[in-house]
Amino acid sequence: IIHADLAENSGARGCMVIKPYGFAIWEEMKSKLDQMFKETGHVNAYFPIFIPKSFFSKEASHVDGFAKECAVVTHYRLKNNEKGEIIVDENAKLEEELIVRPTSETIIWDTYRKWIKSYRDLPLLVNQWANVVRWEMRTRLFLRTSEFLWQEGHTAHESQKEAVEEAEKILFIYKEFIENTLSVPVLHGLKTDREKFAGAIDTYCVEALMQDGKALQAGTSHFLGQNFAKAFDVKFANRNGKLDHVWATSWGVSTRLIGALVMTHSDDYGLVLPPKLAPYQVVLIPIYHNDKEYGELIPVMKKISQDLRLHNIRVKEDFRDTHKPGWKFSEYELKGVPIRIAIGPRDLQNNTVELFRRDTLEKSTIKLNEIHQIAINTLEKIQSNLFNKAQDFNKKNTFLVDDFTEFKEKINAGGFVLAHWDGTSATEDEIKKLTKATIRCIPLGVQKESGKCVFSGRSSVQRVVFAKSY
Amino acid sequence: IIHADLAENSGARGCMVIKPYGFAIWEEMKSKLDQMFKETGHVNAYFPIFIPKSFFSKEASHVDGFAKECAVVTHYRLKNNEKGEIIVDENAKLEEELIVRPTSETIIWDTYRKWIKSYRDLPLLVNQWANVVRWEMRTRLFLRTSEFLWQEGHTAHESQKEAVEEAEKILFIYKEFIENTLSVPVLHGLKTDREKFAGAIDTYCVEALMQDGKALQAGTSHFLGQNFAKAFDVKFANRNGKLDHVWATSWGVSTRLIGALVMTHSDDYGLVLPPKLAPYQVVLIPIYHNDKEYGELIPVMKKISQDLRLHNIRVKEDFRDTHKPGWKFSEYELKGVPIRIAIGPRDLQNNTVELFRRDTLEKSTIKLNEIHQIAINTLEKIQSNLFNKAQDFNKKNTFLVDDFTEFKEKINAGGFVLAHWDGTSATEDEIKKLTKATIRCIPLGVQKESGKCVFSGRSSVQRVVFAKSY
Repeated sequence: IIHADLAENSGARGCMVIKPYGFAIWEEMKSKLDQMFKETGHVNAYFPIFIPKSFFSKEASHVDGFAKECAVVTHYRLKNNEKGEIIVDENAKLEEELIVRPTSETIIWDTYRKWIKSYRDLPLLVNQWANVVRWEMRTRLFLRTSEFLWQEGHTAHESQKEAVEEAEKILFIYKEFIENTLSVPVLHGLKTDREKFAGAIDTYCVEALMQDGKALQAGTSHFLGQNFAKAFDVKFANRNGKLDHVWATSWGVSTRLIGALVMTHSDDYGLVLPPKLAPYQVVLIPIYHNDKEYGELIPVMKKISQDLRLHNIRVKEDFRDTHKPGWKFSEYELKGVPIRIAIGPRDLQNNTVELFRRDTLEKSTIKLNEIHQIAINTLEKIQSNLFNKAQDFNKKNTFLVDDFTEFKEKINAGGFVLAHWDGTSATEDEIKKLTKATIRCIPLGVQKESGKCVFSGRSSVQRVVFAKSY
Repeated sequence: IIHADLAENSGARGCMVIKPYGFAIWEEMKSKLDQMFKETGHVNAYFPIFIPKSFFSKEASHVDGFAKECAVVTHYRLKNNEKGEIIVDENAKLEEELIVRPTSETIIWDTYRKWIKSYRDLPLLVNQWANVVRWEMRTRLFLRTSEFLWQEGHTAHESQKEAVEEAEKILFIYKEFIENTLSVPVLHGLKTDREKFAGAIDTYCVEALMQDGKALQAGTSHFLGQNFAKAFDVKFANRNGKLDHVWATSWGVSTRLIGALVMTHSDDYGLVLPPKLAPYQVVLIPIYHNDKEYGELIPVMKKISQDLRLHNIRVKEDFRDTHKPGWKFSEYELKGVPIRIAIGPRDLQNNTVELFRRDTLEKSTIKLNEIHQIAINTLEKIQSNLFNKAQDFNKKNTFLVDDFTEFKEKINAGGFVLAHWDGTSATEDEIKKLTKATIRCIPLGVQKESGKCVFSGRSSVQRVVFAKSY
């Protein structure tokens, strides 16, 4: 992540700087997801970064989950002391502290109270792209930082059924986006009560498996019931003219997805980016020994990049004469550029170029007049090959386990462990204590099979997914 | 702003909620400006929301301008007290306070020190879209709120000349964007020392005149010299192999532009949106007396909106039967939708529709088969008519004044006052004290004419622009 210029730690403890190359990936993600949200009727808005402390107290379980480890604004002014140093002005203490939003349910539901009067105002399908802060002691770029970027959807509905359908619709948007665009296969399912969002009735999630055998929660979609509507007194006149509390969902994915991408596809040479998100899909590098050769190559390469761009391929020309081709090759391998096209004087004579595929590390010689067609096909192949490779990895590292000794071994070695669970939080806690494994999800869309809990031996209606996680 | 559903005040004092209709305008602005930045070689990145307090002390004039009225994070945890209330955990006090960014020069230049080693790393042309916080006691939606959204560009260059060229290039991007897209005419020029950015050598600005006769600073572009490079020790090996401090610019526009838009074009019926930024450019409204008429109208109107969308026009269909046409007419006038198309049963017989122009309030009857062509032409006319109207207003409210009594009268009445100034901060301060007028800019691109200062009578090399301002 650091060497590929995606991000780095900053002077503000726990906060990252997302560098231009990393941010370009996030911009692509944003633009694709934003389109999927809009196509399903959602609109964007913006709510304040600050949440009055008292708002958190209104939803009891929410405050336990979020208001504890957070950035608290207590003053609104600095001043110079007698030594000329800058200090906090004690006369500028806020009457009520402000919390830098860790998530926005409370401030948004405080606002929705003003927006929703009748069923005619529903559904309200709002999303926001924003920064949030959750205080973290041990940080890790993209996976766990005190500040991160995300989108958070907050919807309001007239019935439980509609709200559940919304939460599920978003779950499948996330799954489709992550699998098709990031080429990262995910399991989808429900969180247990222990693992669900603080304030939710049900938390739907998508879970990915990283190459080190740990699971990564890639996105969550919550059915919030009427919890926040009750906490913030949001009622509407329903179709029968009676007042009722509004039904809610919230859902989000974050810059953590960049972490998922990196840890799913990278190899010993660096990043491997799926073409749909690569800031440059093709890099062009000339190979030459003198000015004459350089002068002959460049016009040909410029024509190639023009041709590729005409076919909507994102191209990087690296014609710098300050760096040798070998250095450039390593650099763009490190940065995970899907295709490298190099041309030397002999290629020029033969009307060919050398095409290198980052995912398979294969080189091939192709004809000049076939470049754009082969590039388009190759990008598609890379996109699906990355997905298939990751799915093969997942299959090889997913285990059906019925014995607790084997369970501990498999959890230790890494991977998804499908095991029976008796449905109690006590068992879940005990397993976590003994093995560090958590239930990543109660899978949906799979055949249910009854059995006996791998830990307690009590009866179980279906296998759940255990793993160690980030 | 409130009735047109653009924004409202929130439960977090001084912070606004930007509602979906208002945010859609900001999204259009962002997308157009972002494209202009990218076409001129800039890339986006993201820097932390928090700035360690000590960073502000490093650039002396900067701290005076920014670190004083700001949101200060002092703690990172809340806890329950014995009564079960949520309070700040005094054991979780930060060693060094964090400031919620009012602007990001300091944290960015602390980062650039790691990125810049040689002239080969320059220029560095980075922009960020972000939220910032400047504590405000008296707030006003879009114009002055404690939190607002903006873009801030931060560039690094190997020479003074390059940095000045960059600051000027951006000034003209802002001018072009604001005049062509917002239809708001602006003066461009330099700020005086009193009015320039805290930490800048020169601040370029664009200034607009609102309908109430007050000026609004619409955007600024700063040539920062080597101030921040020196404060954060950012040196590079130049082309002669010697170490030198880097030259810098920074520049920004914010959601304040929505305020400029509203206060330039609105009339007694509500907003008037320039077509290029209107979330809906055309609204379609059926006029009917019974279900039969409704049933006949809707398919025709759906064909119209399909046709308009094919021609890249943003269309809103309001076919709700819960609201009367008259109510809808007022609603979309309030919201400033550029064109309204209404059809009733008689129109249907005649193959015509009624087209209403929001800017001129004129209605015309046009033929069904001419709709898209007339709509396209009308949107263009509205866009340029709004600009011309505003420019006429500016001309009528721009005064050449050489006498201080007249100066005071004109300033009081409102408008731009072009007057001679002796170039001293003392005179500038005195004029501000007596009249509340500030120098909005020392205009560029106008013929210089020498004269005598309107206040002191001392010699002056050119007229400057005075006004009361937001």
